[in-house]
Amino acid sequence: MKKIIKNGTIVTATDTYKGDICIEDGVITQIGENLMDIDGEVIDAKGCLLFPGGIDPHTHLDMPFGGTMTKDNFETGTIAAAFGGTTTVIDFCLTTKGNTLKSAVDTWHKKADSKAVIDYGFHLQIVESNDAVLNELPKMIEEEGITSLKVFMAYKNQFQADDETLFQTLVAGKELGALVMVHAENGDVIDYLVKKALKEGNTDPIYHALTRPAEVEGEATGRAAILTDLADSQLYVVHVSCEVAAKKIAEARGKGIDIWGETCPQYLVLDQTFLEKPNFEGAKYVWSPPLREKWNQEALWNALRTGQLQTIGSDQCSFDFKGQKELGRGDFSKIPNGGPIIEDRVSILFSEGVKKGRISLNQFVDIVSTRAAKLFGLYPKKGTIAIGTDADIVIFDPEAERVISAETHHMAVDYNPFEGMEITGEPVSVLSRGEFVIRDKQFVGKAGSGQFIKRAKYGEKQVAKKNKPLTM
Amino acid sequence: MKKIIKNGTIVTATDTYKGDICIEDGVITQIGENLMDIDGEVIDAKGCLLFPGGIDPHTHLDMPFGGTMTKDNFETGTIAAAFGGTTTVIDFCLTTKGNTLKSAVDTWHKKADSKAVIDYGFHLQIVESNDAVLNELPKMIEEEGITSLKVFMAYKNQFQADDETLFQTLVAGKELGALVMVHAENGDVIDYLVKKALKEGNTDPIYHALTRPAEVEGEATGRAAILTDLADSQLYVVHVSCEVAAKKIAEARGKGIDIWGETCPQYLVLDQTFLEKPNFEGAKYVWSPPLREKWNQEALWNALRTGQLQTIGSDQCSFDFKGQKELGRGDFSKIPNGGPIIEDRVSILFSEGVKKGRISLNQFVDIVSTRAAKLFGLYPKKGTIAIGTDADIVIFDPEAERVISAETHHMAVDYNPFEGMEITGEPVSVLSRGEFVIRDKQFVGKAGSGQFIKRAKYGEKQVAKKNKPLTM
Amino acid sequence: MKKIIKNGTIVTATDTYKGDICIEDGVITQIGENLMDIDGEVIDAKGCLLFPGGIDPHTHLDMPFGGTMTKDNFETGTIAAAFGGTTTVIDFCLTTKGNTLKSAVDTWHKKADSKAVIDYGFHLQIVESNDAVLNELPKMIEEEGITSLKVFMAYKNQFQADDETLFQTLVAGKELGALVMVHAENGDVIDYLVKKALKEGNTDPIYHALTRPAEVEGEATGRAAILTDLADSQLYVVHVSCEVAAKKIAEARGKGIDIWGETCPQYLVLDQTFLEKPNFEGAKYVWSPPLREKWNQEALWNALRTGQLQTIGSDQCSFDFKGQKELGRGDFSKIPNGGPIIEDRVSILFSEGVKKGRISLNQFVDIVSTRAAKLFGLYPKKGTIAIGTDADIVIFDPEAERVISAETHHMAVDYNPFEGMEITGEPVSVLSRGEFVIRDKQFVGKAGSGQFIKRAKYGEKQVAKKNKPLTM
Amino acid sequence: MKKIIKNGTIVTATDTYKGDICIEDGVITQIGENLMDIDGEVIDAKGCLLFPGGIDPHTHLDMPFGGTMTKDNFETGTIAAAFGGTTTVIDFCLTTKGNTLKSAVDTWHKKADSKAVIDYGFHLQIVESNDAVLNELPKMIEEEGITSLKVFMAYKNQFQADDETLFQTLVAGKELGALVMVHAENGDVIDYLVKKALKEGNTDPIYHALTRPAEVEGEATGRAAILTDLADSQLYVVHVSCEVAAKKIAEARGKGIDIWGETCPQYLVLDQTFLEKPNFEGAKYVWSPPLREKWNQEALWNALRTGQLQTIGSDQCSFDFKGQKELGRGDFSKIPNGGPIIEDRVSILFSEGVKKGRISLNQFVDIVSTRAAKLFGLYPKKGTIAIGTDADIVIFDPEAERVISAETHHMAVDYNPFEGMEITGEPVSVLSRGEFVIRDKQFVGKAGSGQFIKRAKYGEKQVAKKNKPLTM
Repeated sequence: MKKIIKNGTIVTATDTYKGDICIEDGVITQIGENLMDIDGEVIDAKGCLLFPGGIDPHTHLDMPFGGTMTKDNFETGTIAAAFGGTTTVIDFCLTTKGNTLKSAVDTWHKKADSKAVIDYGFHLQIVESNDAVLNELPKMIEEEGITSLKVFMAYKNQFQADDETLFQTLVAGKELGALVMVHAENGDVIDYLVKKALKEGNTDPIYHALTRPAEVEGEATGRAAILTDLADSQLYVVHVSCEVAAKKIAEARGKGIDIWGETCPQYLVLDQTFLEKPNFEGAKYVWSPPLREKWNQEALWNALRTGQLQTIGSDQCSFDFKGQKELGRGDFSKIPNGGPIIEDRVSILFSEGVKKGRISLNQFVDIVSTRAAKLFGLYPKKGTIAIGTDADIVIFDPEAERVISAETHHMAVDYNPFEGMEITGEPVSVLSRGEFVIRDKQFVGKAGSGQFIKRAKYGEKQVAKKNKPLTM
Repeated sequence: MKKIIKNGTIVTATDTYKGDICIEDGVITQIGENLMDIDGEVIDAKGCLLFPGGIDPHTHLDMPFGGTMTKDNFETGTIAAAFGGTTTVIDFCLTTKGNTLKSAVDTWHKKADSKAVIDYGFHLQIVESNDAVLNELPKMIEEEGITSLKVFMAYKNQFQADDETLFQTLVAGKELGALVMVHAENGDVIDYLVKKALKEGNTDPIYHALTRPAEVEGEATGRAAILTDLADSQLYVVHVSCEVAAKKIAEARGKGIDIWGETCPQYLVLDQTFLEKPNFEGAKYVWSPPLREKWNQEALWNALRTGQLQTIGSDQCSFDFKGQKELGRGDFSKIPNGGPIIEDRVSILFSEGVKKGRISLNQFVDIVSTRAAKLFGLYPKKGTIAIGTDADIVIFDPEAERVISAETHHMAVDYNPFEGMEITGEPVSVLSRGEFVIRDKQFVGKAGSGQFIKRAKYGEKQVAKKNKPLTM
Repeated sequence: MKKIIKNGTIVTATDTYKGDICIEDGVITQIGENLMDIDGEVIDAKGCLLFPGGIDPHTHLDMPFGGTMTKDNFETGTIAAAFGGTTTVIDFCLTTKGNTLKSAVDTWHKKADSKAVIDYGFHLQIVESNDAVLNELPKMIEEEGITSLKVFMAYKNQFQADDETLFQTLVAGKELGALVMVHAENGDVIDYLVKKALKEGNTDPIYHALTRPAEVEGEATGRAAILTDLADSQLYVVHVSCEVAAKKIAEARGKGIDIWGETCPQYLVLDQTFLEKPNFEGAKYVWSPPLREKWNQEALWNALRTGQLQTIGSDQCSFDFKGQKELGRGDFSKIPNGGPIIEDRVSILFSEGVKKGRISLNQFVDIVSTRAAKLFGLYPKKGTIAIGTDADIVIFDPEAERVISAETHHMAVDYNPFEGMEITGEPVSVLSRGEFVIRDKQFVGKAGSGQFIKRAKYGEKQVAKKNKPLTM
Repeated sequence: MKKIIKNGTIVTATDTYKGDICIEDGVITQIGENLMDIDGEVIDAKGCLLFPGGIDPHTHLDMPFGGTMTKDNFETGTIAAAFGGTTTVIDFCLTTKGNTLKSAVDTWHKKADSKAVIDYGFHLQIVESNDAVLNELPKMIEEEGITSLKVFMAYKNQFQADDETLFQTLVAGKELGALVMVHAENGDVIDYLVKKALKEGNTDPIYHALTRPAEVEGEATGRAAILTDLADSQLYVVHVSCEVAAKKIAEARGKGIDIWGETCPQYLVLDQTFLEKPNFEGAKYVWSPPLREKWNQEALWNALRTGQLQTIGSDQCSFDFKGQKELGRGDFSKIPNGGPIIEDRVSILFSEGVKKGRISLNQFVDIVSTRAAKLFGLYPKKGTIAIGTDADIVIFDPEAERVISAETHHMAVDYNPFEGMEITGEPVSVLSRGEFVIRDKQFVGKAGSGQFIKRAKYGEKQVAKKNKPLTM
């Protein structure tokens, strides 16, 4: 049966207008001033915005880290995502040296396939540069539909790849049509500073920030940009946390390099002082890169507004404070990195960005959904409201007010880093391919209904690439 | 009666999708997969793209310059614009010291009102900074709907304003909600170099370029950006011609300054060597800023692709070669500056940009239409295809091939600077507010049918401003 | 009779060594470990440094400004200079539109010739660009020996020249071998901000600083650098006060542009808060450019240390607080700009620079003496201690401690901006061409003994110029 | 017996003047206009310049590389150096993982002590970061007098150290007073490009340059600068070859970072096209970094002139063309890197720099001698002509003309990369501590007469350090 969403204000990355939406077989088939005569279920969206479901390009669900596992798996994690207005996630598939890429992808499918309540895709970590990896890559990209590759420049002796691996991955990405993603911090310098801090007895959470100075992120970002230019390839810098890194990206874009930047809600609204909270509570705010001095926030907002940064990821990677974050008592380097953000990513950007006039409403949609869809080959199936696209729609009350709290959130963890934050704007209902996942703020979806999406290659349709003819 | 455009591919600044469009009372009321049942005139757009009519933010029609008048007036100029897929122009209303702004606006209305075949608006030149100007400005902006102000940093002893005027205009623009536009070249240095060249007997057209080096444009661009930052205001740099200026804009954007850049087709596809054509033919290629060394073209394309430049204007300012350009024989400084570009602006960007893979199709729409609509307060009436917007629609054949020539163009001048250039893609029909202006490549509109548009203030709805709350 | 200065430590811009100096006919003729056998007056310099007399490249003595005259003339000013270890000053000869350069130079000679107690030269202001000026310039440079030209980019409607004048002066400087100096602030923006402040009733001295923001100095500095590059000429930026301007100079030097920067003691040790002193006392600290936020000091010291700034001038321009500075009560724009610095320039750089480890001892000599000598064509007559040079020597006690105070200074004004500052290091005796001017901290010279010095052209011997063969 | 050098023109980094020099016990004791009455050997230097002996801060004598040994050892190498006007060399002592630093230093002493004909010192390579190295460092610096440490960022799997080693060395250098030197190229990217080139059959010498693009040097230089800033330490970048790297250094200096840059004669006068010489002759021009496109030369000269680069090293590392360079036939990566430059370093800088007006005569002395003396703790014993310094003096005929050729040079190799180059200026005689090593262009010294010099710590006397009090 058709569904008609009436009386809402449709918002895309470009447009804002009153219009009714008709959905058929999970797809949007008609948009009009007043779709009166269509048979079907009518959903009244009066007073609400209708925008494409959020796309979270950066999640770590059901992931091992530092001897423990993230608390949220693909079920709890995607339910929380849906509550927050996100209808697609792209999760990082970790790999290990000496094993096939395929085995890692299979593992990740096992984690996700029966659990996800919304659609999802995978990025693939590249941890070494050898012929086996190179030989397997074309299949991963073309058959598995995994068209983005992740390289870590930090986490020495763990995830960190050397520059040769990064460079080879950039060259492969260019040839095969994959977008290369980097965690840009100089892991060598960090490793030295961490060991030095611990040796000097500096073990509190704040030393997590003090041993990862912003310049270390700026350096790695600049280096990755230069390597991208040399390889004539394309780069996506995840979780940009500070002005110095944002400026490196802006500078590279100014030279015409294909470089894109993502930031995260935590860097936009929290700052380094949170790591100094007493009673080890600072551990709740341990991310890598770390929270920065407060003045960086304005630089990040400006970078979003002027298009130097383009997307926002949650970097969802949740651990309980009790029992998990506490592994780092007495040694900050043992605190599991990451936090529960997947649920509030969209709302925070709306409330702090649009409502406070830092970005326009259309920029908001672009940042939380459309741009990620285009960069990661989900568009036009995902990322917009237009004829023929999946009916992944958020019915959003822009005036609702709520307070973020672990008591009410839907993630599986025992704290929320934004605890007590007042937010304006909230999803009322959320549809995935035309079906309600959230209806009137209640979860009505089911585990396993989410589909894995094989994504198009980078630049295939929607993104113009430097020095590369674009297939229309 | 309703019109239904069927079977086309709709393109906006964000989306590309198959869909039928229903038009009623000049406005788009419905978009759908297959609008079968609506009564009305059916227009078949099979194989065609449907995109919002181009918006040319930079025209000089019926303008006096150097003792002569531009050849195209608001009738011939807007007819040519329509042939090329442009449905709105914003023309520069020149002012003179000591006279009221109102008198200048009245003059411009007289030039335009009975002649334009498409809709139009005015920018207002600010040539001096005194209380009379300041007192009259609020009325110009709020009552006359002229929400953009132009300051020249070049043309010494003629249009050139001093830095105090520019700065005061930026302050006023911020307070009153107007976007300040600059012609950014250091007129003082140019004046010296021109006099020196003439004194040394260097009178050929090429000296027009040699006496206006790129650094002179870069300097003025950088200066205007700093003044904008100091005034916490907003700036739009017209006709960016070279890498050094584009980089200054990128750098300023990287700092979060509200600065926007426009380039023109001529700078993207022609170069300085054209000024060396024999038999004084170089005079056909005299623009200010001048054509640059060829390598600048790639930098400009990259700046469009990465969003460091955002729009494309024609800088339409046409003079016959015979009798007008020839005024500069023996003295390049007497060659009337400008050329006939209004007709081919959209096509060149499509053919050289989209077809050659330098920008995506959606970027193309953004650059030729949407972004200008938002920056200059025409959106959502103009600049997109969505429910409720004016039905200013181009039905565009993306595979048509043609050769640009003065023999076939519709501008009133005796030459075309792109003579002989092969172009892919051509407007078949063009509608303005739902009425055909061009139908099957024939002009079917009429003089005076174009309407003057009072434009919204800068940042009122669609553009996020630095340090400024945005009214949603 | 010969003089032998024994037991001192000789310091030049390169060397530090123990050595005796023999002087004959005002010139250094011998330097050795132990000059025992020479007949002559022996001066014991045990425990003292011997360095070349300071060269102050930036003084305004006996100058009219804002309806009053500087308090110090060539007699009191040069006596104070000598007490402070300076043996040469270069004063600015002001010119006025419509009058010959020669008449201005004659006026300045009348001010100086019978009064100066140390040697001196003139810089020549260029206020307009016309044929009369251009025709007179070669004579000024070659016959009068005035080989540096000053252009003001600020003081609108008073000293300010337009960019054409600056550019023409740069071209002339290149052709004729003169170094072009600029006061780099955007006078237009300042003029607007001053009028606005006064209109809003903001009349206190602090508004002097607030209406001349650092960006305004940075802009003008960058502009002057670009014009210098275009003219392929050479530039000396006077009184650099802030990081943003110092960075513009560093950036230009990084491109190989012949640009030099001078700062002043006041910018190195005082800051903007001094302008907020109560009872109008802030007026004592009114310079243009103004004192800056304190963090700029470190940037200026770094620029001196790394050679991005090369010299230090006093910008001596003294007015009594009573009766002169007070002219600006109720209107900060009427406070005469400038202060009494000529006496403490050398000592402050020694005490704050060398003693605090920010610059080396040899850099100190370079900055206060040698570099100015080379840039302004005084070398090898002045600026070093070597065989054949003028015996302009400071016998300096590096451990002496004193407190700066108007009660003890030798300038003719009623206050000292460094009042109460503790200084280590003080000249004991000072020789000019082998004769004592200061002996054991007493003035023993006489008015009129100073000689006017015709200076060599820029680059003639000691300075390598971009793109210019150097005559060895 | 005393020696008196008469009638010469003495040149230091600051001064140029006529003067006689008296030498006693190997040290300069007196300088004067006319030293008539002193008993001793008189050397007539009429028409000659007298400047301090050159200091070559970058030599590889008797060094193993790629399975072969450099052709020049400490005897042939220092003889050639002396012929060229160099009286001190600082050679790189190579170390290997797992062995003590002391054992490497002992090895190097064995190579040098009985052979050198001029004085010498050692730099010490740091190849790993562990406690053994850290514990041994203080002794190397304080007891052995080896106050400079070298880290390679290139030569993967051979000399290359990781960023942690570089960073730890910088921290140690700061704490212990050593200057850290880097070979700045991204070895990982190079390694990839070399393997790729060889795999594709690109084996000719030109591929040595094509697999080491300038950006790879710029990246590593910028990275090292950021790490230096983070460590609050000091850095010396060896053999800067291109504009992009020189700009990174200029930019860092503009921020007040303690960073110094050295270039080499080959980068100033040769270019990448030399690698394309037929018959494998390109192998003669294989250095790392490689020769660059010709336009880089002007950037390097400008950087020397404006003080952004400060020294010139030879990077002497000589291999015969026959039998040694030929090891790389069919595989450019096997060509031993380096060339014979030690002899012509000073002359080329004089002829191409001073004679062609690119640098001043005093800058020349600073660059070839004084600055290295100060940076590497040799001053005031070495690096200048002043009372009390070692009489290391070059008697130099500035008008002599000669042609560089392997047939006449004194290095032990069978070719000269500057073969056929016409040079103006040549050393006539050279003294080391007052004794002739070269007299009237003949070698008159003897093996083993050179002394090893324990050098002072960085910043101890002559160099001001950021954030560090300087001991006067």
